[in-house]
Amino acid sequence: MISVTILGAGNVATHLYKAFSKSENVSVVQWYNRSLKSIDIYKNEVDVIDNLNQLKDADVYILAVSDDAISELSSQLPFKDKLVVHTSGSVSVHDLDKNQKRGVFYPLQTFSKTAQLDFKNVPICIETVDKPYYHTLKELAISIGSPTKKVNSEQRKVLHLAAVYVNNFTNQLYRIGHEITESEGAEFDLLKPLILETAKKVQETSPYLAQTGPAKRNDQKTLKKQIKALKNEHHKDIYNLLTESIQRTHGSVRNKSK
Amino acid sequence: MISVTILGAGNVATHLYKAFSKSENVSVVQWYNRSLKSIDIYKNEVDVIDNLNQLKDADVYILAVSDDAISELSSQLPFKDKLVVHTSGSVSVHDLDKNQKRGVFYPLQTFSKTAQLDFKNVPICIETVDKPYYHTLKELAISIGSPTKKVNSEQRKVLHLAAVYVNNFTNQLYRIGHEITESEGAEFDLLKPLILETAKKVQETSPYLAQTGPAKRNDQKTLKKQIKALKNEHHKDIYNLLTESIQRTHGSVRNKSK
Repeated sequence: MISVTILGAGNVATHLYKAFSKSENVSVVQWYNRSLKSIDIYKNEVDVIDNLNQLKDADVYILAVSDDAISELSSQLPFKDKLVVHTSGSVSVHDLDKNQKRGVFYPLQTFSKTAQLDFKNVPICIETVDKPYYHTLKELAISIGSPTKKVNSEQRKVLHLAAVYVNNFTNQLYRIGHEITESEGAEFDLLKPLILETAKKVQETSPYLAQTGPAKRNDQKTLKKQIKALKNEHHKDIYNLLTESIQRTHGSVRNKSK
Repeated sequence: MISVTILGAGNVATHLYKAFSKSENVSVVQWYNRSLKSIDIYKNEVDVIDNLNQLKDADVYILAVSDDAISELSSQLPFKDKLVVHTSGSVSVHDLDKNQKRGVFYPLQTFSKTAQLDFKNVPICIETVDKPYYHTLKELAISIGSPTKKVNSEQRKVLHLAAVYVNNFTNQLYRIGHEITESEGAEFDLLKPLILETAKKVQETSPYLAQTGPAKRNDQKTLKKQIKALKNEHHKDIYNLLTESIQRTHGSVRNKSK
């Protein structure tokens, strides 16, 4: 049994709390937030606190707070030499107070308030400054069903950066698909199965091999027709840049004077 | 029972053939291709031909060939006033020979040679010049389990264009995620659950509401760190353009002199 205290009340904190509560191998000792308002509804299940001096003993303290708050919060903890981890993709493990045993427990997934999330689909990237604690964090991840990976700070930053492309930027392309269809009286809903299939494809095949379409084929006729059909200059810029990107990847790019 | 003849041997033709073969309400009369080589393995199941003059009577002739070949192939058919449809997203229904009853049977999905595909996840966009034939095509789509939608040529082109964004361009972002991770010794595999979750999210939520991340929050500190960390100039261009795009959408854009 691993005892855990959660600090913070955002999406990551809340999803972790729910997963830990359900696990038979984890007990949530306390849930801290600087304001009780957002965690008050859980007070019948867990000891909710807003004062760091009330913190009790736990095996792991998880700082699931915003990147900017991690360093300061860790320095305010009223104890020493305990396992203290943050959940951020981009903050160094060394930003945690060096009086603690430091680590990172980074769930590589997108969390929203409402959506249900099965932690078997949330890889946990683990890093520790002191080796023995790696196994505690691995056990903690396994107890909520998550796959785990040992990832150093440099690799974690790279994963976090790549996540911006495959999550935030991809979602923006969905948004543009939404704008293009709805502005012309077509239904975005018709694209939803395609969106899902595109994501499923790269679960098995590399994105390189999965690529299709006019840019890869260098089908100039379709490319020209589509650019002409785009009414929004910004959509055009994205069309041109990503077409060029595909053609670089697949060697179908022509000499261009720029 | 609807009788169908397929013309062409690409991915769409092959997936349609397999789906029609399995359906109890469809009989595939013949499968034509200008070269028998690619369809010869099906000769024990269906009448495979490479000569248009051998075409027998069928309720629907489906021209699942490349965009450029549709017009010419339709003009070479040795009969008149039959229901002849193409499967393209971007070709006008009027490109088909006007001696025929013309229509479009456009499956809005990505087809690959190997991947299994359930047609319940393939919306069929239907268009006909002669109204009564709409119901034949709708029945044909329903008989393989596909949802259907009446879509005119203009809407179909718009859907095809939007599909380039949510499929080809999205896949290229996956590719860049692959490049960024693998070049730095991180594992692309760790991003796969995130890719799937991002696609699942917009099945229920609009892409607008689903957006998260540093660009939407206008988190300048992270944005600057990430741009600095990118080693490839082309990746940087895409980072900048899509960040700008997110900020336009979410009103977090600052005044910029360009």
